[in-house]
Amino acid sequence: MVENENQVSSRLSQAIETLQRYCRQPGISAQGVGISETIDLIKEMVADAGGQVKVLDDLGGNPVIYAEFEPGPQGNPDKTLLFYNHYDVQPPEPLEEWIYPPFGAEIHDGKIFARGVSDNKADLIVRLQAISVLQQKGLPIRIKFLIEGEEEIGSPTLPRYLDKYATLFRADACVWEWAQKNAEEKLEMVAGAKGLCYLELTSETADIDIHSAYAPVTDNAAWRLVQALASLKSADHRILVEGFYDDVEKPSESLKDIARSYPYDTAAASSLYGMKTTSPVETEDARAALLFEPTMTICGIESGYTAAGVKTVIPRRAKAKLDCRLVPRQNPEDIARKIRLHLDAHGFADISVEMLSSSHPFRSDMDHPFLGVVKETAAAVYGEGKYALLPNYPGTGPMHLFAQYLGKDMPIVAIGTGWWDDRIHAPNESIRIRDFEEALQYMVRFIGEF
Amino acid sequence: MVENENQVSSRLSQAIETLQRYCRQPGISAQGVGISETIDLIKEMVADAGGQVKVLDDLGGNPVIYAEFEPGPQGNPDKTLLFYNHYDVQPPEPLEEWIYPPFGAEIHDGKIFARGVSDNKADLIVRLQAISVLQQKGLPIRIKFLIEGEEEIGSPTLPRYLDKYATLFRADACVWEWAQKNAEEKLEMVAGAKGLCYLELTSETADIDIHSAYAPVTDNAAWRLVQALASLKSADHRILVEGFYDDVEKPSESLKDIARSYPYDTAAASSLYGMKTTSPVETEDARAALLFEPTMTICGIESGYTAAGVKTVIPRRAKAKLDCRLVPRQNPEDIARKIRLHLDAHGFADISVEMLSSSHPFRSDMDHPFLGVVKETAAAVYGEGKYALLPNYPGTGPMHLFAQYLGKDMPIVAIGTGWWDDRIHAPNESIRIRDFEEALQYMVRFIGEF
Repeated sequence: MVENENQVSSRLSQAIETLQRYCRQPGISAQGVGISETIDLIKEMVADAGGQVKVLDDLGGNPVIYAEFEPGPQGNPDKTLLFYNHYDVQPPEPLEEWIYPPFGAEIHDGKIFARGVSDNKADLIVRLQAISVLQQKGLPIRIKFLIEGEEEIGSPTLPRYLDKYATLFRADACVWEWAQKNAEEKLEMVAGAKGLCYLELTSETADIDIHSAYAPVTDNAAWRLVQALASLKSADHRILVEGFYDDVEKPSESLKDIARSYPYDTAAASSLYGMKTTSPVETEDARAALLFEPTMTICGIESGYTAAGVKTVIPRRAKAKLDCRLVPRQNPEDIARKIRLHLDAHGFADISVEMLSSSHPFRSDMDHPFLGVVKETAAAVYGEGKYALLPNYPGTGPMHLFAQYLGKDMPIVAIGTGWWDDRIHAPNESIRIRDFEEALQYMVRFIGEF
Repeated sequence: MVENENQVSSRLSQAIETLQRYCRQPGISAQGVGISETIDLIKEMVADAGGQVKVLDDLGGNPVIYAEFEPGPQGNPDKTLLFYNHYDVQPPEPLEEWIYPPFGAEIHDGKIFARGVSDNKADLIVRLQAISVLQQKGLPIRIKFLIEGEEEIGSPTLPRYLDKYATLFRADACVWEWAQKNAEEKLEMVAGAKGLCYLELTSETADIDIHSAYAPVTDNAAWRLVQALASLKSADHRILVEGFYDDVEKPSESLKDIARSYPYDTAAASSLYGMKTTSPVETEDARAALLFEPTMTICGIESGYTAAGVKTVIPRRAKAKLDCRLVPRQNPEDIARKIRLHLDAHGFADISVEMLSSSHPFRSDMDHPFLGVVKETAAAVYGEGKYALLPNYPGTGPMHLFAQYLGKDMPIVAIGTGWWDDRIHAPNESIRIRDFEEALQYMVRFIGEF
């Protein structure tokens, strides 16, 4: 391994130059800027690392790049690792807030500043450079890449490509695009994501708003929606929908152990967000809640007169947006159905429920040997206590699409180069060069151990 | 009385000409148009009817006109009737929707069309012309007028004038500006108004909106407001605030009789407003509810993301506007205090309550002899079954200001010339000439009987 570490060190400056070149090529999906130029550059970089490229563009949207690297003579051709990356970046605006040019990839204070450098250009370069290092003795396994160009706009056409090209992308395990070190400088690797059931509830009681003098004899859309919402969740945060928690599994002791090491602190969050009320849960419970508990959030509600001053009116219509984060074994369609049944059963059959977005929860088998390799490598490279492998994000992501099309038993783990203040999606995005070097060491070792 | 009826008939054309002249003079408080010209015209009309005018303009706002008519030699100088009118009108816009010019006062199909003709120029002319008729034998009582110029913008300076000039305006009874025949051609006279307690409730849980992945550990302003509101009123329309109904009097049998004749029909209202849900009450109960029951209405609610599509966010703030209509003996300050105490007691001490507007309920003593004269005159002029004397509006009005400054025992009754389709505040406002003639007959007889 010392041999590899030396190779990484001697390769670092070349890797940084390649990353800078990649960062200087904008590829902005939201604005349709530089897509084909970015693809050409990736083709060149894959070829440099000894791989083959197929540009898939027959199903609409920005092309999906498939890249493949054959194992060496001593390698195992039946063992396949899939890397998921994206070549698109967020728009750089507002430009005036950048200290260094967003497509300059300048190095200052040990950091590289560029739009997309952390999310997730550095990780593609780390992976390709690690392969280049290992190519000198031949790769131990087959390596595939799925590099899409629409992640920053919600991956609208990715499912079609995954569906049609499932055989091409199939693998034994998948490394997800990106991960970061948290504020305690601990790398948070993640093996799953919560699901999402995003609903719009609408109450409509009349064709027109009505003078509020008629309140004694008139239904009020705002009152009906408020009463319906209040029936869904108690003031002490318990979701009251019949059967909502039925499919939620109690976390195992080993998962609870992981939660205990999850670095969420209620006091810090309270200060960061300027919270005005007491946190619904204590720090200890908060960590488990973030990882294991489903939620129901009112993201927005609107009805009637909301400008300044007084208007005495009975609103004819009221709308609320409701977001449920789901944990493994919950199903967004099933949750939407249970909410519908609950409303019907509680006298709110007139309130319509429309699903605006949904996403299934995903969690890798936490006992899969692949996750063992992930952790062992992290212990060796970052050190014990300097990494965590979380069972899932508190949020939602498209891992479930890979599970759906490429097989639900394929473990997926997010590993990466980011850090806690890397400002992804914001001005002055950066990575730290020492994180980049560690990530390269990690990846060389990780692929070698696989 | 036949003598007076003949006098009215012979006076009708002169009364119409005077009304047309008055309608051709715009006096628009919202636009500051024609105020002094309108005052000059009223001074002239009062003088023509044999009265004295004082223009009160020392307290800001548009001047308040005080007019007084002395009783004749056989009259009672200690008995005083006060008329309340306003000389300002709503803006005429949108002009393109008028069939006839808004300040033309043209006569078509037995109607006079003009901005303000119903609200409430015809009533001032009816009152002055009735006085002119009665002056030929001398007035039986002292008559005063309060004619303000800011009714259409909410009477902002009227309380100051009422306060300072209370002695000047004091009277034994008051006739309110305006009343109308309903769709059953029954004149609805009204002897009171509901009060109003208009509140804004604000929930604030953080300084910034928060990613909804943090829902397990974060309070949500929208949820808190929804839960707080739901604690105030049940889904079956019962207000749950402790003590809210304490001061509500059960209506007497005679008031219930009046309610039975109140022409509200749930089916007609349902069709008019396009109501989507069943009315909270049956027609029979609806009539009593409109007159005697206090209400609590959400006029508006707003929080978080309300535009199209999906945003997964925990709103930091939520606001609702809440309008309570109050019945006699309820007090807006007391109601606001009870809502505050209720929120505190139910765990919502963090939700702020601000009073944006308030108005006390008012109801004349329904057994006062003055109301007997109102009804007897109506029976004689309009006929039995062709009028109703309601104890109050379902809505709110400033009668309570007169009670506050001029004495709460002074009965107030709204009597007038309007009709159900007179389109006050809208294009093509009109009165019907036959209603104008009847109103003039009524007023001559009414003052004579007083």
